[in-house]
Amino acid sequence: MEEPRIVGLKGLEQATPRPAPTGFDGQGTLQDAVRDLITTYHDLNPTTIDELDDEPSPLEFMRYVARNRPFVVRKAANTWSSHKKWNSNYLREILRETNVNVAITPHGNADSILHLPPNGAVFVKPLERSEPFSQAMDRIKTQALDPTYSGPTHYLQTQNDNLRGEYATLFEDVPPSIPWARIALEKDPDAINFWLGNAASTTALHKDNYENVYVQVLGRKHFVLLPPVEAPCVNEKAVLAATYAYTGAHTDAGVLNKDDLVVQIDEPEEGEQQGTYVPFATWDPDQPDAHATPYSQHSRPLRVSLDEGDMLYLPALWYHKVSQSCNDEGLCCAVNYWYDLDFSGGFWAANSFVRGVGLLEQQQRQASVAAKPHPASLAGKDANASMDRWVREFQQGVGLREREGPQTQTQTTEKAQPSFGTDEDGPGAWSTAEKSRAFDRWVDEWQQQALGQTPESALAPPSAYPQTSSEAQVPQPIANAEKNSTMESWMRQWTTAQK
Amino acid sequence: MEEPRIVGLKGLEQATPRPAPTGFDGQGTLQDAVRDLITTYHDLNPTTIDELDDEPSPLEFMRYVARNRPFVVRKAANTWSSHKKWNSNYLREILRETNVNVAITPHGNADSILHLPPNGAVFVKPLERSEPFSQAMDRIKTQALDPTYSGPTHYLQTQNDNLRGEYATLFEDVPPSIPWARIALEKDPDAINFWLGNAASTTALHKDNYENVYVQVLGRKHFVLLPPVEAPCVNEKAVLAATYAYTGAHTDAGVLNKDDLVVQIDEPEEGEQQGTYVPFATWDPDQPDAHATPYSQHSRPLRVSLDEGDMLYLPALWYHKVSQSCNDEGLCCAVNYWYDLDFSGGFWAANSFVRGVGLLEQQQRQASVAAKPHPASLAGKDANASMDRWVREFQQGVGLREREGPQTQTQTTEKAQPSFGTDEDGPGAWSTAEKSRAFDRWVDEWQQQALGQTPESALAPPSAYPQTSSEAQVPQPIANAEKNSTMESWMRQWTTAQK
Repeated sequence: MEEPRIVGLKGLEQATPRPAPTGFDGQGTLQDAVRDLITTYHDLNPTTIDELDDEPSPLEFMRYVARNRPFVVRKAANTWSSHKKWNSNYLREILRETNVNVAITPHGNADSILHLPPNGAVFVKPLERSEPFSQAMDRIKTQALDPTYSGPTHYLQTQNDNLRGEYATLFEDVPPSIPWARIALEKDPDAINFWLGNAASTTALHKDNYENVYVQVLGRKHFVLLPPVEAPCVNEKAVLAATYAYTGAHTDAGVLNKDDLVVQIDEPEEGEQQGTYVPFATWDPDQPDAHATPYSQHSRPLRVSLDEGDMLYLPALWYHKVSQSCNDEGLCCAVNYWYDLDFSGGFWAANSFVRGVGLLEQQQRQASVAAKPHPASLAGKDANASMDRWVREFQQGVGLREREGPQTQTQTTEKAQPSFGTDEDGPGAWSTAEKSRAFDRWVDEWQQQALGQTPESALAPPSAYPQTSSEAQVPQPIANAEKNSTMESWMRQWTTAQK
Repeated sequence: MEEPRIVGLKGLEQATPRPAPTGFDGQGTLQDAVRDLITTYHDLNPTTIDELDDEPSPLEFMRYVARNRPFVVRKAANTWSSHKKWNSNYLREILRETNVNVAITPHGNADSILHLPPNGAVFVKPLERSEPFSQAMDRIKTQALDPTYSGPTHYLQTQNDNLRGEYATLFEDVPPSIPWARIALEKDPDAINFWLGNAASTTALHKDNYENVYVQVLGRKHFVLLPPVEAPCVNEKAVLAATYAYTGAHTDAGVLNKDDLVVQIDEPEEGEQQGTYVPFATWDPDQPDAHATPYSQHSRPLRVSLDEGDMLYLPALWYHKVSQSCNDEGLCCAVNYWYDLDFSGGFWAANSFVRGVGLLEQQQRQASVAAKPHPASLAGKDANASMDRWVREFQQGVGLREREGPQTQTQTTEKAQPSFGTDEDGPGAWSTAEKSRAFDRWVDEWQQQALGQTPESALAPPSAYPQTSSEAQVPQPIANAEKNSTMESWMRQWTTAQK
């Protein structure tokens, strides 16, 4: 090919290709990329759930699968035998003393995060016990109807295709598959699950690798739904696994009291030293300010409640948190159909990428936060602006108390000497309670500076908690004495650094 | 909620949540994330294209849309009037002297990248001219059938719904929509396009925001297809826009000669100084070693050829490069239907994220490469290992020639003094040709070190090309004299740095 002639080229630099625009707002950082993914999604999708007048055709359903968007069909299961026949008496009559697997927890918190302030957490699975169905249902009802009930929470929730297993005698009351889902997805359900519980139980925010058709039979369920692109909002962490267990005082057959349950840390799996860690969402969309990531504020949860007979399509990989309300009999009962998601095409690969990049961005950012000087580890004269401000506050706090300190106080931060003494209540020093409040506020500020993130264990003052190896009481809020000594240590280090 | 008791906790650190595993291989860097996205996709999908026996039902089609995977249906359009009636005579009879828009290029390279070695590129659009249809078709045929033809390439390819515009008289020979696509997507096509060209034209790798149904009528088309997750493979850049134009010697009506076409740089758009830059793929899957990114090696292009009557579903956002073969009449003719893609759901947002993060990763990596010392900008004693090795090669090259240099040569790099003189052919120095070859090899190595990437303009030796502002001949390969002076300048700087 002969060389073409070029007209109007101002110079070779002009023809050097530029980086293609990423399309991200702001500085075009990875953080901008993750945020824009979430906001773009919401710009293109409603924050309400579609309500269909009738069950969809397979093609109509497939459009929702392609779009990975949920819908609800009111009263779609009103014709099912389950809707017409199931109630406390019928279930008792069919299942009687059949032994069923019961999930037992003190607060209805099966498979969820138990936070151990300030920075700890465990992922607690329920105590699982085999009980006669009638007994389990009676306990569920009693808790719902009897205000004096003080026992633990029971939930029948095995999610192991139990409607074709331990509850198989009920299976004839529901269709063996959802016709439009079976035709569209060209497969039968992987699992059909029966759920029986009461309002005390909540299923924590999580996602499943399934296309899910959820049918309400008795009572109501309340869903909070997050699309897969919101993975960076849920603050997924690898959390120490634990299981509720009996204390020694009770046997398998006994009636359980709430106080009989302890959180038993799981044995480390083969080859692991520290314990078994389960990846799980630590953010709760109903408490959006706690355990948030910088992206959580961009979450736009869909909320929908199912009444008896209502049907929900809950698309694959959507995060969902589910709470429930009982009917007059004190029961909440549902059935759901799980169809394997299609791992081919780009959906699975792209959403794994979104989840992983969100985690990566968070870890990179936290590493960069950790690299910044922490008040507790100041060296040399690199005290940062926060520390300056805190010292100024400390001094002003003293000033506001209208006491004279042992040294002259100035409002300039340049080589200012904060006035604290070893005697907590000495002249010019804050009281123990004042120091404690200041500590709380400063730690909060520090966390907020770290872009809304707790920089993991960096903040835990040393030796704040007992390090017993066998049975540790859950840590209480940090003792005032600990706060005082930590804060004073920071101040002392800062002063030394300024000299 | 009272505090639960915890059993078996070894200490608070044990309960500090860990970062959740990203699932990425290797170091878990952003580069690992992008690579794993592509390899995961290929682990889950075949590298062949599905061939259907018959046209799909709307539901079957919707499954492919949901999966964003292509398929081909052989002979699906054999019943169309276009298949039965279209040939050179019929087209001439219907369209006669109707003026149509013709894309004219010297090499069949409309809307494609013209590389200007070593680092430049322009995105060249065709000269567009209105010509009587018969004349345009005759030129297309003549080029295909007459080996002595030396004129430019003509292509009827307006892609502006032209089958319902300038070729509307042919529209009755094809269906107004593809029934299964119309029903599944619930929309009529946004555009229906008529294509007429010959084997000289190639459509460069690009993607469209459309679900595309492509139907071959005359001759054959050869598709190279890349899924949207391979965006990081195609080395998208913002490339200076240009358009083929006449030289002054010819008028609009005249017969064009290939030599009459020059590349005219587009005027900068309002508010831009440097020019208009178009985001475009600079990698060609048929020349995989040139202009590659570190991800290009993971691309697994699907290849499919359409014969007359064959139909291809080309899913939205798939990159495609299209070449063609003529029938006996010297023609290649096709029709395609563009249906707007569904921007709702997660598909568009997730793929914009993939594309943008791929670009971001590349730009971050190149910035980090650019931050490393370049041979031409060595300062102090931070000569890097490459430079050491190059000097050693230089010395060995001299040694192999069995000449004695003006200075003692050693094989150690510590403070070694490379032996070059100002006299190119003086004793101990390489010949001009040897230096030239060494320069080429070292620049290649440097580029490869930059992870397969050319670090943009960093490599261009100063003043290698004329910087004329009006009409610049395309740069020729760097002159030997330039290479020699550049290489010697690098050597001199290195030696100075070592002292």
